[in-house]
This record gives sequence, C-alpha cells and structure tokens, in this order.
Amino acid sequence: MQTLNLDLGDRSYPIYIGQGLLQRPELLTEHLQGKSAIAVTNTTIAPLYLAAVTTALAAYKHSAVILPDGEAYKNLATLDQIYTHLLEHQADRKTTLLALGGGVVGDMTGFAAASYQRGINFIQVPTTLLAMVDSSVGGKTGVNHPLGKNMIGAFHQPQAVIIDTDTLNTLADRELSAGLAEVIKYGLIRDPEFLTWLDTEMEALLARDPEALSYAIERSCRHKAEIVAADERESGQRALLNLGHTFGHAIEAAMGYGQWLHGEAVATGMVMAAELSVQMGWLTQAELHVIRHLLERAGLPTEPPTTMTGDDFMRFMSVDKKVLDGSLRLVLMKSLGESIVTADFDPAALNRVLHRDRVS
Amino acid sequence: MQTLNLDLGDRSYPIYIGQGLLQRPELLTEHLQGKSAIAVTNTTIAPLYLAAVTTALAAYKHSAVILPDGEAYKNLATLDQIYTHLLEHQADRKTTLLALGGGVVGDMTGFAAASYQRGINFIQVPTTLLAMVDSSVGGKTGVNHPLGKNMIGAFHQPQAVIIDTDTLNTLADRELSAGLAEVIKYGLIRDPEFLTWLDTEMEALLARDPEALSYAIERSCRHKAEIVAADERESGQRALLNLGHTFGHAIEAAMGYGQWLHGEAVATGMVMAAELSVQMGWLTQAELHVIRHLLERAGLPTEPPTTMTGDDFMRFMSVDKKVLDGSLRLVLMKSLGESIVTADFDPAALNRVLHRDRVS
Repeated sequence: MQTLNLDLGDRSYPIYIGQGLLQRPELLTEHLQGKSAIAVTNTTIAPLYLAAVTTALAAYKHSAVILPDGEAYKNLATLDQIYTHLLEHQADRKTTLLALGGGVVGDMTGFAAASYQRGINFIQVPTTLLAMVDSSVGGKTGVNHPLGKNMIGAFHQPQAVIIDTDTLNTLADRELSAGLAEVIKYGLIRDPEFLTWLDTEMEALLARDPEALSYAIERSCRHKAEIVAADERESGQRALLNLGHTFGHAIEAAMGYGQWLHGEAVATGMVMAAELSVQMGWLTQAELHVIRHLLERAGLPTEPPTTMTGDDFMRFMSVDKKVLDGSLRLVLMKSLGESIVTADFDPAALNRVLHRDRVS
Repeated sequence: MQTLNLDLGDRSYPIYIGQGLLQRPELLTEHLQGKSAIAVTNTTIAPLYLAAVTTALAAYKHSAVILPDGEAYKNLATLDQIYTHLLEHQADRKTTLLALGGGVVGDMTGFAAASYQRGINFIQVPTTLLAMVDSSVGGKTGVNHPLGKNMIGAFHQPQAVIIDTDTLNTLADRELSAGLAEVIKYGLIRDPEFLTWLDTEMEALLARDPEALSYAIERSCRHKAEIVAADERESGQRALLNLGHTFGHAIEAAMGYGQWLHGEAVATGMVMAAELSVQMGWLTQAELHVIRHLLERAGLPTEPPTTMTGDDFMRFMSVDKKVLDGSLRLVLMKSLGESIVTADFDPAALNRVLHRDRVS
C-alpha cells in the first residue's frame, strides 16, 4: 500500500492506494469520530462492494443509501434522498458518511456532508478510475443544475481517501477509458514525461495490468495533491485541472447529463483546447496530432457531437465557473505538457474552433 | 448610525444600525467586489423596499429574484428557483447577492451564496426585527427539510449587515412580537440587566418607539457579535443562542412550517426550557412566572399547541443539531440571565414537561 498525504494544515488527510484495501477495516474505522456511519453508493456498486464496507462497520451504528446510477441523477432531487435517509436514521453531527462509488457518488456524498447540519465528516472510497485519480481528492463537492454542470456545491475535504485498485476489475471498459482522460490530463498540464510513459504503457493500462494502473493512479494523485495543497480554493493554479472541462461541461449539459461520460467530454474538450492553442501559435499541428492520437488509443472520442452548434457551446460556456466579471477564461496549452489559464485568447479563433471550422 | 464590528479575522464585517440606511447607496456598494449584484427578496418586501436597492445598484449589472413569502417556502425547491435565476442571469464568482427581507430570505440567500459555484459573496439587509437581532448576523445559512428545521445549510458569513430600522414601520405586529422573542432570549442567556430594561420598556417597544427599538437591536447585535466572534462554528457557547430552539423547532416542524412563526415557537420553547430548569431546581417558580409574563406582554404564546403530544416532541427533537452521538443536549437556565448547554438533565423531568404535566 502507498500512502500519499494531502497537506492542508489541520484539514490534511491521507490517500491510501493499493490492492485489497476494502478488506482492511481499520483504514476506514480509524477515520470515524463518532459511533455511527452511513454509506452512500449506487445500484451498480452496492452488490459488488457494499458488503465489505458493512462488515468493516459492524461495531458502529450503520446503514446505507443506494442511489440510482449515473450522472443524470447528480441533482438536487437525489441529494434530497440522501438528506431524507440521514434524518430518518437520526444522523447527527458526529455521523460520518462514506462515499462508495464513482465521481457522481463522491461529489454528491461530499456535498451532502458539507451541508447536512452545516457540515459533517466523510470518507471517499472511489471505485472508478476517474474518481480515484481526480474527483475523490481535493474536496470539490456538488451537484449539477439543468443549466450548468457542478454549479451547486462546496469545498469540503474528506477525512481520508481509500483507493482499492481491485475494484477496477469490475469497471466497464468505457468507464476505464473515461478515467484515462483525466490521467492524460495531468501529462498535458504539467508532466511531459508522463505523456511519454502513457504512450508506452497504454496497452498495459487498457489490459488492466495492476502495476501499470497503480503507477498511473499514484502519479496522478501526487499531481492532484500537490496542486490542491498549493491552491485549495482555486484562486490560481488549481484551475489548470479544468483543462478541457469548459468545453466538456458544455457537451455534457447540452447532450443531457449521462449521455457523454464526463471523461469522454473532457477528452474531446482537451482536443478543442489544443486546437485553439494551435490557432494561438502555441502548439504545432504535430503536437495536436499526438494528443488526439493518445486519447483515441485510450478509447476516447475526440470530436464534439455533430448535433451541437457553436452557439450551443457559447451558451453553456458562458456560465462556466471560470467566467469572472463576464469574461471567459480558458485553460490552454503553451506547449506539450504545460498549460495556462488565460482570458487572453483570440475570440475569432475560439469561434472557429466552436463552429467546427477545423484546423486539421 | 451605529457601526458594530463582528471580529472574525479576515472574514470580519460591519453591522450598520440606523434610520434611513436604505437611502445611503454607498453602504451597499462599498461591499461589492465585482460588476454585478442580484437582490433576493419576497412578494411582501419587494413593493416596499426593492426600489431603493435597485436605485443603489444603478451602476451595476443587477436583477432581482422575488420569492413567495413565508417559512413554508424555505426549502430546496425555492432554493432551486434562486439558482435558476443566477444561471439565467449568468451570475459568476464575483457576483454579490443581497438578501432583502426577513430570516427566511436571509437564510436562503446565504445558503445560495454559500453553494453557488462553491461560494460567492452576499450582504444581509434585514427588514424584520427577528432578522435584525438574530438571523442576519453570524453566518448561519440554510433551508428546512420536511423532517427537521434548518437541517441543510452552511456557515457562510456575509460581507456586511445593513439594518435600516425604518423598515420596522411596515412590519406586522405579529412579526414584531416574534422578533422580541429573540431579543428577550439574550437577556435570558447572559444579560439580567437587559431583562429589567425590557420589562420597563416593553410598552415603548410595542409602540415602535424608534429609540427603544434601536437600543434593543444594538444591544442584541452586540451579544450576537461577541458570541459568534468567540465561537463561530458552534463548538461551545454559541449553542446558548439556541435557548428554546430545540423545543421550538419541534413545534415549527410538527405544525407545518409557517403556522407558528419562528419567534413564537422559540418563546414557547423558552418557557418549556424554563419549566425543565425549575424541575432541575435551578429556577424558582417565581422566576418562571417572570419569564412567562414578559413573553406574554410581548404578545407571544407560552403554551405548546394542544394538538402536539409528548411523542411528537420527542420525534422531532431527536434530530436536533445539538444531538451528539445519540444523546440530546438542551439549553437550560441555571438562573435568570444565565443559561448553559447540557445533556445532564433528568429524562423523567423532560418527559413531564413534554407531556404537559405542568409544573405551574
């Protein structure tokens, strides 16, 4: 087992990464403060892994909320289901929530924990690659609104993140690919060597080679932990983690949440960011090709939905959380493995990318 | 104009108290960080005071959300109306919300600000006595759940509190009385001299004598600011502010939100806390009588609803936010003007109070 530490002063917490961690109850229980815990999971994950968590909680007052599976349910109505369960089971301020599932379960459980009785503790137990390398670490929690993704939420750090890589064995291929989009993102933001490694190891990753996956998860979590420790509230470099997300969120919202997986939309969004970076003269056509090819090898889409117009993109991008005082900021690539956040791009070039006036 | 300061380090803010403050736009605008502001108010307050706020915001991009009036609407569905307005008007992280109204508007606007895009600024402009002396100060925000009052929320401090005492001229008598319950509360918690003053000045307060009201508001806000500065997150003495609230929240939830005003339920709750304190041997019958009489003079109810059983009380009290690891804590009175938070009370005595086996 590897243990990373996310350093946030008195809100620091460990990230455990390894095989068979769900069979080690002490990893969970050492982070419980009171006498009760409530697991939040979904209909896909419950039959696979809820029993292990329930066993670990045998000495505690415990119960479970089982939500429908999918991004389409990441909304206020499902959140209300969690609150109702907490109240019916008389959860109090010392109750700890356990988020057992992917990014949707983790984000919603985290926001329920942030807002129930004005804040209780929670622990992340991610079971998808995307949640392991991205959403379970860093304390961003929330739900979607029909008019914009993750528009309602809070910063609320977990007590611990427990990553049992064995749970990847039951992950659907499409979900594995979606997770790889966020792994590749770290390479594109700040780690060109990692891009080279990913290029070499892509077949091993897709074949679920445990060593390759563990290494990719650990290296990704290190990046995430470093960035969050330096900028918890996203006043600066943390925004780099949104590479591809402004375009991607527009795709997710416009297509209906759950039609495109988050990682799929981010992959296409990163290609669009790369295209704009080419138009700005920062990336070469050859580098754009490298990015697109790596994402395609990971099984990811790299073209926006044919049904989406440039105006559709603009409408959803105008409510992005990186808009400040009305001006849109984007994460773009200065070079392969180095990204920046900027409002200083050519609007005409953005327009060409959005209207699919392709550069390649 | 009086200016108090709530000292919370880099989250400190001023509380302005005076007549005609809505006619001083600079009090609002000096606390706006961006170029846009959105007022949140209700159908009762909008015709009276929204124009003044709109005038103050003339130089900013601004709009208003007008909610239905009443505690019955303090829920997730109404909150969603606020989010929808924010998204439709492309509010971003530099947009400031203005809560113009009573406690319901203030609590919901504050929670919308806490959770929109993971947190934006807001300003409190309370227009009821209750909101002026209690809910607008201290950063508690949230909405009700059918199973419990204020169960969903966050701590989120405003940028400023602007109390224009002229707005009390349009307040309904019943609402004025409800506000007086929270004013009397400060006397019962920690200020016996204030109780004497209230006894002398009750007629003046009910006649809306501006000087008497200003003094009561200022003295109440000073107490609130001192307590919150010492214990922002309610790990200790801030819980004293919940005197009467555990009983009162049970009444509000059981009767249906809005049937009893919050202040009315708190008044009755304070009498029930006093009754239990008598049973514990801490208060005398004479002191209980003084409390009951003062509340009655303020126009407040002091008997729980005849339709509520002891079991109704227990069911709603068991999800109170002061329950910790399953044990109920209550605010009780050690003497007139001195309260404590304790789980160390006689359950049989509580049972007698709840089952209306009255001590007087």
